[in-house]
Amino acid sequence: MMSSQSDSAQWAQPESAHPQTGLKVYNTLTKSKASALPPGGVPFVPREGNRVSWYGCGPTVYDASHMGHAFNYVSLDIMRRIMEDYLGYDLTVVMNITDIDDKIIERTRHEHLVAQYRAKAETLSEQLVADVGAALCDYANTAFPELVAAKLGSPIGRADDWRAFAAAVNGGQDPALAASSEKALMRYDAADAAFEALVAARQSLADGKSSQAAAVALVDTATDVLAPWLDAQFRESVTDPRLFRNLSAYWENDYMADMDALNVRRPNVLTRVSEFVEDIVRFVQRIIDNGYAYEAEGSVYFDVEAFDGTNGHVYAKMSRRSKDSAKLLAEGEGSLTKRRAEKQGERDFALWKSSQPGEPAWPSPWGPGRPGWHIECSAMASEILGQNIDIHTGGIDLVFPHHENEMVQSEACFENHQWVNYFLHTGHLHIAGRKMSKSLKNFITIKDALKKYSARQLRTLFLLTGWSSGINFSDTGMDEAIAIEKTLSNFFSNAAALVRDLKQAQQPADPKRQTNEPEIELLAALADARDQVHSAILDSFDTPRAMRAILDIVARTTAYLQRGRESIDPQPVEMVAQYVTKIMRAFGMADDSATRAIGWGSGAAGTAGADRETTLLPVASALSDFRDSVRELALAGGDKKALLALCDRLRDQVLPELGVVIDDHGDGRALVKVVDPAEIRRARELSEAKDAAKQLAKAKEAQLAEEKRLALLEKAKVPPQDMFRTPEMRELYSAWDESGIPTKDAAGEDLSKSRAKKLAKDYDAQKKLHDKFLQQQQ
Amino acid sequence: MMSSQSDSAQWAQPESAHPQTGLKVYNTLTKSKASALPPGGVPFVPREGNRVSWYGCGPTVYDASHMGHAFNYVSLDIMRRIMEDYLGYDLTVVMNITDIDDKIIERTRHEHLVAQYRAKAETLSEQLVADVGAALCDYANTAFPELVAAKLGSPIGRADDWRAFAAAVNGGQDPALAASSEKALMRYDAADAAFEALVAARQSLADGKSSQAAAVALVDTATDVLAPWLDAQFRESVTDPRLFRNLSAYWENDYMADMDALNVRRPNVLTRVSEFVEDIVRFVQRIIDNGYAYEAEGSVYFDVEAFDGTNGHVYAKMSRRSKDSAKLLAEGEGSLTKRRAEKQGERDFALWKSSQPGEPAWPSPWGPGRPGWHIECSAMASEILGQNIDIHTGGIDLVFPHHENEMVQSEACFENHQWVNYFLHTGHLHIAGRKMSKSLKNFITIKDALKKYSARQLRTLFLLTGWSSGINFSDTGMDEAIAIEKTLSNFFSNAAALVRDLKQAQQPADPKRQTNEPEIELLAALADARDQVHSAILDSFDTPRAMRAILDIVARTTAYLQRGRESIDPQPVEMVAQYVTKIMRAFGMADDSATRAIGWGSGAAGTAGADRETTLLPVASALSDFRDSVRELALAGGDKKALLALCDRLRDQVLPELGVVIDDHGDGRALVKVVDPAEIRRARELSEAKDAAKQLAKAKEAQLAEEKRLALLEKAKVPPQDMFRTPEMRELYSAWDESGIPTKDAAGEDLSKSRAKKLAKDYDAQKKLHDKFLQQQQ
Repeated sequence: MMSSQSDSAQWAQPESAHPQTGLKVYNTLTKSKASALPPGGVPFVPREGNRVSWYGCGPTVYDASHMGHAFNYVSLDIMRRIMEDYLGYDLTVVMNITDIDDKIIERTRHEHLVAQYRAKAETLSEQLVADVGAALCDYANTAFPELVAAKLGSPIGRADDWRAFAAAVNGGQDPALAASSEKALMRYDAADAAFEALVAARQSLADGKSSQAAAVALVDTATDVLAPWLDAQFRESVTDPRLFRNLSAYWENDYMADMDALNVRRPNVLTRVSEFVEDIVRFVQRIIDNGYAYEAEGSVYFDVEAFDGTNGHVYAKMSRRSKDSAKLLAEGEGSLTKRRAEKQGERDFALWKSSQPGEPAWPSPWGPGRPGWHIECSAMASEILGQNIDIHTGGIDLVFPHHENEMVQSEACFENHQWVNYFLHTGHLHIAGRKMSKSLKNFITIKDALKKYSARQLRTLFLLTGWSSGINFSDTGMDEAIAIEKTLSNFFSNAAALVRDLKQAQQPADPKRQTNEPEIELLAALADARDQVHSAILDSFDTPRAMRAILDIVARTTAYLQRGRESIDPQPVEMVAQYVTKIMRAFGMADDSATRAIGWGSGAAGTAGADRETTLLPVASALSDFRDSVRELALAGGDKKALLALCDRLRDQVLPELGVVIDDHGDGRALVKVVDPAEIRRARELSEAKDAAKQLAKAKEAQLAEEKRLALLEKAKVPPQDMFRTPEMRELYSAWDESGIPTKDAAGEDLSKSRAKKLAKDYDAQKKLHDKFLQQQQ
Repeated sequence: MMSSQSDSAQWAQPESAHPQTGLKVYNTLTKSKASALPPGGVPFVPREGNRVSWYGCGPTVYDASHMGHAFNYVSLDIMRRIMEDYLGYDLTVVMNITDIDDKIIERTRHEHLVAQYRAKAETLSEQLVADVGAALCDYANTAFPELVAAKLGSPIGRADDWRAFAAAVNGGQDPALAASSEKALMRYDAADAAFEALVAARQSLADGKSSQAAAVALVDTATDVLAPWLDAQFRESVTDPRLFRNLSAYWENDYMADMDALNVRRPNVLTRVSEFVEDIVRFVQRIIDNGYAYEAEGSVYFDVEAFDGTNGHVYAKMSRRSKDSAKLLAEGEGSLTKRRAEKQGERDFALWKSSQPGEPAWPSPWGPGRPGWHIECSAMASEILGQNIDIHTGGIDLVFPHHENEMVQSEACFENHQWVNYFLHTGHLHIAGRKMSKSLKNFITIKDALKKYSARQLRTLFLLTGWSSGINFSDTGMDEAIAIEKTLSNFFSNAAALVRDLKQAQQPADPKRQTNEPEIELLAALADARDQVHSAILDSFDTPRAMRAILDIVARTTAYLQRGRESIDPQPVEMVAQYVTKIMRAFGMADDSATRAIGWGSGAAGTAGADRETTLLPVASALSDFRDSVRELALAGGDKKALLALCDRLRDQVLPELGVVIDDHGDGRALVKVVDPAEIRRARELSEAKDAAKQLAKAKEAQLAEEKRLALLEKAKVPPQDMFRTPEMRELYSAWDESGIPTKDAAGEDLSKSRAKKLAKDYDAQKKLHDKFLQQQQ
C-alpha cells in the first residue's frame, strides 16, 4: 500500500478558457492540512463554460426527516440558488433517493411482521404473554450483552429476570448503561415498557380479562421488542417486493413534502436506486474488469489493496481516515451485511450484496442481490452527469466512508483521478449544544420544527450561520433569526407602501427637486452593500457576512424613511428594496414560484383565475359588508359615531385577519399594506402575550396593594393605648403612663427625651389611624 | 485645431481587479475604422467590481412615441435585463426626461394660441377669412421660399396666389416640391387644405351663412397655417410656466404608458431637466471656469476651438463628423435658437440659452434663460452617477451632435478623457424599407402598433433583429415574429401540461426506468443550447443567435414529446422548459412583475404568492379610499345623500374596473363576485352597443312616424273636391259630378257601381281628413 500523504493533496484545479465569476469555495478535497492551497477556498472553475454539474446525496427513505436534514438541504439549496440565480451558472442538479438499503429492508420486515402478528392477536392469551417474554429476553441479551453478563452473571433466561437486571442498573440510572452503547437508553426504555406491559397483561389474565384491546395494547407497547424476535423467525416469509417499495415510496413523499415546505428547490433529475440497478451492475462489472473488485459468495467487494497505489490511485485521499475507520466502514456496509466475513481486506467494502431470503433481490452476473450503498451514487451520478462532475454535496458525516468510497469506485471504473472536482460538505447540527438523537430526547423532526417556526425563520438562522461551520440549533439563535426576519418584513412592507404611495402622488407636472444629498448618500450606501454582498457570496457563499451587509443597508434606508414624507424620494428606496428582495430571493427567502413556472407567466387576463378569486374574495366581501353597513347607517340618517366606529372596526379587526393593514394618517388618506395574515396573527399573539403579562403584573400589584391594605387595617384595629403592650413591646419597656406610652426601658431606666418624643409621635399616628378605623366601623 | 484621427481611436479599456463575465460589446467609441481594436466588440469591464452605471437618453416629451422609440427602448431594455438578470450585474440605470426644449416651447405656444383664437371665433367673419389668408401667405413663403420664387417670380402676396402656385407645382405632384425640403409635402398639404377651407368659408359668407360651426371648421382645418402666424404676433403673451409644464407632463405620462405597455423596465432614477436646472448652471459655470466656454448676450457657448487639442482633449472623437455637421449641429441647437448669431465659432454650441419673451426662463449668472439640449444630460448623468460612467445609451442618430457634445462638455467640466467608457447605440428603424416619417405617411405610433401586434410579438421581432444593426419593420418580418412567438407559446403550454400530468401520475412506488438514452440525449442538447445561448449573449448581446439556439432546443424537445406518453420522462422536459422560460424572462418576453416586486412575495397560505399583493392591492386600496371618504363625511356630520352616492359610485364605477361586481339585494346585503375585469369591460361595451342600436332603431322609428305624419298632413291639405282632379287622376277619368267625384272613366264610359261606391267612400274619408285639417288650421 502506498500511503502517500503528499499525493492525496494533489488536487488539480480545473482549467477553463472561459471567464470566471470569481467564486471561491471550501472544497473538502483541498481542506486537508497538507494542502498547499489557500485556506479561504479555491477558485471554482466549471469544467464546461458556464455549465455546472452537481450531484447531491439524497436521503435513505425509511423514516421522518429531521433538523439535521433541514440544515443540510436548506444550506445546499441556498448555495444552489446563489449559483443559479445570482451568479447565473447553468446548473444540472441530480439527487438520488436511496430506496434499496438494509435499514429499509429491516424496517419493512419489522413493520410488516408486527402488523401481521398484531392482526392475529384476537385475545390476550398465555401464548401472547409467552411470546413477548421470549422476545424481551432476546432483545435484552442482544441490546446489552456485556452489561447483562456483568450484572447477572448470565444472559436473561426468562422475562422476570428483567426485574433483577433493571434493579441492577438502578432503573436505568446506572451510568454503565448509557456507556454500553449509543442507543442503550432507548433500548432499556423499550424493554422496560414491554416488561411493564407484560406484567399488566399477566394480571389481566389472572383477573379473567382477555379482550382483543388488551392483546393489541400489549403488542403495541412491546413492538420494538417483538419486531426483531419475529424477524429472526419469519424474515424469509417477506418476499413481496411491493412491501419494500411502499415503505420507501411513503418516506420519499414525506421527505419531498418536507423539502417543499422548507422551500428547497427540487433537483432537476431525481434518481431512484431501484430504477438504476442495471446501470449499477454494469458499473460494478467494469470495476471488476479493471481489476479493482472481486466476487465472493455472490457478493462483489472493492479491493482497496489492489486500488491504492495502482495507476496513481489513492484510497481515502479526502479524509485520510485512519482511526475509527473500521467502525464507520462497518456501519456503512449496513446492518444486514456486517456478519459477512467473505471479504478479503479489512478496508474492502461491498459493491454488490447477495440477497438472503427476506431481502429484495435483482438479477446480476453474480446471482440475485442488490447494490451496496456507495456504488449507487457512483453509478447514478456518472450515468446522468458523465465521468467527471463539478460538484458533489452532502453532510460532513458522509465524507467517510460514503464519499471516499464513491470516489475510489468511480476512479476505478473510469481510470481517472478526479471524478469530482469540488466536494462541498455541510457542517454538523447540534441541538442546544448537544448531538441530536432520539436517545437524548432532543430529536426534532422537520415537521416538529415547522410547527414552531416558519420555513423562512429557519432559513434565516441557517443564513446567519453559514453552511460549512456547523450549527447549534437553540432558542436564542431562533429568537435572533425571528427578529431579523421581522426587521426585513417591516422594511419590505414600509418601503413597498411608501413607494407605491409616493409614486402615485408624484406629479410630473409639479416640478420638485427629486434627488439630492440624502438620496445620493443612500445610493452610495447601496453601492457599498452591493459590493459587500457580492464579495461575501464569492467567498464560499459567506451568507452571514452578506446578511450583515443587507441588514446594514436596510437600517440606513429605514433611517432615511424617518424623514418627513414630503422629503422622501421613492426612487432610491425602491432601488434598495428591489435589491434586498433580489438577494433574499437568491437566498430562497422569498417566493420564487413564478420564477420556476414554465411559460410567459401572466396571461392577458390573469390566467390564474381561480387563485385570483381565492385571493380577492375575502377582501372584496369585507368591502361589500362595510358598504352594506354604511348604507344602512346612511338610510337611518347618518349617525356620525356609528360610522366612525365602523371605520375603526374595519381597520382593527376585519382587515388584519385578511392580511390588509390600514394606517390612518393625519391628512385623512390612509396608507394601505398587503401583508402576510399569519404575520399579523403572530404579531397579535405576541402583543396579547405582552398584554397578558401586563395584566398579570397588574394583578400582582393589586394583590400587593390589597395585602398592604389588610395589613394596615390589622394595624388600625389596635387601640393606641395597647400598641406598646404587645408581648414584643413588653420585652422593650417596663413602665407605661396612663395613655399606655412607655416611660422606662426594659432595664427600668427612664427613656431618653428623643425616644419618648418618638414614641409619643407613634402613639399619635396610631391614634389617628385607629380613630379612622372606628369611624369606618360605624 | 488638432484633427487627430489616430488620437481619437485611443480608447482606454477600463482596468479592474475583479473577475469578468466575458461580455463583449460593440462600443461606438471604438467602432471607427481607424480603430485597431477587434471588430467583434471590446471586453466589457465595469469600473467598480460588479456594479454598472448606465445613463440612457430619454425622450423629449412633446409628442406621441413611435416605432423608432419602441425599437430603441425595447432593444436597450433587452440588454439591460440580460445584464441584470442573466449576467448578474448590479445596475444603476438613470434616464432623463427632456422637459425643457424648443420643440416643447413652440408646441405649447402654438397649441395655446390656436386654442385661444378658436375660442374667440364665434362667427365666420371677413376678419377670420382675412387672418387665414394672411397666415397662408406667411406659411407658404416660409415653407417653400425658393420654389415660390421660382414658380411665381415673387413671394405669395395674397391668399389667391396659392391657386397659381398649386397649379405651378402640379397640385403637389411636381418632384421639385418633395425635393425642396423633408417636410415640404406635408406642408403643401396643410397649406392646400387651409386654402380649400378658405374658399369654402368665402362661399358661406357670400351665402349669408356665418355660424360658429363654420368658423371653428375653418380654424381647425387651417391650424397648421395659423399657428406660426399667431406665434409670430402673440408669442410674448404666453408667460404662464404651467402651460409648458402641462404639455411635457402629458407626453411624459404618455411615453411611460407606452413603455409599460411594451414591458420596458423603468429606470432606477428618472431625472427631469426642470428639476436639475441649478445643477446645470453649476456645471456650465465650471466649464467657463475651465476656459472652455464663453458668455455672449446672456447665452453661454461651448468653445470648441479652445477645447480641441487642449490638455489632450479631442472634439467629436466618436463620430469624426465632418460633412453635414453644420446642419446637424444647427438642428441640435433647437428651432428657437438657430437665428442667433452671437456664437464665435462655427462648431460652438449653446450650453445656456437666454430666454426671449414667451420662452420659459430660470435664473442664472448670465441672466434668465434655460439649458441647452446637450448640457442637460452631461449634468444630470454626472450628478447621479459621478464623473465617470460605464454605459451611455441612445439611438444612433444621437451620436452627433448630442453625444459628442455631451462628452466634450463633461470632459471639459471634469478635465478627464473618458467620461463614458461604453457608448451603445441602437440602429435605425425603417418601415418596409423606407425611412419612417409623417410626410411619407408611414409614421406608426407605439399605440398604433400595439393595436395590431402584442408587445411580445414586437419584442420577438427585435430579438430576431438584434440591437445594433438597425431594423426594417415590415409585415413579413412581423409574420415571422408572430410564428416564432406562437411556436414558443405552444411549446410552453405543451410542456407545462405534460410535466404537470406526468408528475401527478408518477408513482414513486412504481419502479420504472426513468432516464435512458433519449433523455440523456435531450440533456446533452440542452447543454449545447446553454453553451450557444451563453456565448451569443456574451457576443455583444447577439439575441438573433441566442433565439436560434432556443428555437433549436425547443424543436428537439417538441420532437421528444412526440414519443408515446408512457415513454416520456417529465424531468428533462421540465428542465428545458424552465431554461427556455428563464432566457425568455431575461429577454423581457415573460412576465417578471413578481421578480421586480418588493418583499417576500408569498402569503403564508401558499396561494399564488407572488401575485397576492398585485391582486389584492387594487381592491384593498379601493376599500381604503372608500373608508377615507366615509370617515370624511361622517366627521362632517354624516350627509345621507352623499353617503349613498358614495356607495353607488363604488358599485358602478370603482369596483367594476377592478373586476369586482356588487349586486345590491333587497335585504340590504349585497352579493359580491370576483370576475375578470376584461369581461366586465366587454359586457359593458356590448350593452352600450345594444343601447346604441336600440337608440338608433328608436330614432328611425320616430323618423318614420314623422314622415308618415307629414305625408298625412300633405294629404289632408287637399280639399275633397280636388282630390280626383290631380294630373294623375285626370288620366283615369273624363267627367266629374258637382262634388268633384268622377263619373266616367278615361274612355268616357260610366264607372261601374262598385267603383263609384269606392270613390264616394274615398271622398268621404278625404272630406273628414280635410275638415279636421281646416279645424286644426283655425
